[in-house]
Amino acid sequence: MNETEVWLEQAIRMARENAANGDGPFAAIVVRNGEIVGTGVNRVGSEHDPTAHAELLAIREACTRLGRTDLSDCTLYASGEPCPMCMGAIYWAKPGAVYYACSKAEAADAAGFPDPLGSFYAEMSGPAEKRTIAVRRHDAQGKLEPFFVWASR
Amino acid sequence: MNETEVWLEQAIRMARENAANGDGPFAAIVVRNGEIVGTGVNRVGSEHDPTAHAELLAIREACTRLGRTDLSDCTLYASGEPCPMCMGAIYWAKPGAVYYACSKAEAADAAGFPDPLGSFYAEMSGPAEKRTIAVRRHDAQGKLEPFFVWASR
Repeated sequence: MNETEVWLEQAIRMARENAANGDGPFAAIVVRNGEIVGTGVNRVGSEHDPTAHAELLAIREACTRLGRTDLSDCTLYASGEPCPMCMGAIYWAKPGAVYYACSKAEAADAAGFPDPLGSFYAEMSGPAEKRTIAVRRHDAQGKLEPFFVWASR
Repeated sequence: MNETEVWLEQAIRMARENAANGDGPFAAIVVRNGEIVGTGVNRVGSEHDPTAHAELLAIREACTRLGRTDLSDCTLYASGEPCPMCMGAIYWAKPGAVYYACSKAEAADAAGFPDPLGSFYAEMSGPAEKRTIAVRRHDAQGKLEPFFVWASR
């Protein structure tokens, strides 16, 4: 069993336990130099927090522990395929590699697990007015000021 | 001044103050029935947390306060255009509407604010092996078990 499988199987065990405890069937681990620097399990149900996904929590824990937002010397292992929100977090933290065990399609086919964001990428690449959730730009006084303050720091 | 402008200008003031305090020039507000139920300001720098974006924090606060993950009876107001990670959070929480004041292009043109995720959507709709960050599926023992536990609850 190679290193990737060792960490993925640990994430899977954490995900199984989390599901047995009544929360989402997902877990993630961030590893650096063979050591765990961050873990996360899905807490959406227990905390009523739609952002409490395993990958996002594991990235947060690793970054705050290491004191930096860059995880390029780390690897992220996730029990399931990252959702678009977690992909965004992955792009910001830039782990050197990302591995996941179970794809969205496998989870759907084998256990009927829903993927309500399946259309997300298609939606986002299409026109704003055709999206399920309208995201509109609206002009407002001083909108550039925060950026000017940022630029003058 | 209509309601949208009132809330956007409040978010802009919060963003300007947050930038003056040394953190990112972004803030967001979740409003329900004319009352604020969640706010967030960018804490990426101060907390070394790449996931601490204003929109994500405002959504989290609103959901934990309301005790539910669905914000369809709320409106999200953001000082700047949401990034892909925050768009993912928006799709999960499903606010009834989303308004933002300053676009990514305006922030870049007027103040040189970088948008390192500009290519995200293009990357994600292309083949996995051509992405900046490799996200690989790797088979592992028991990968479906968390979902079977979930399905049998």
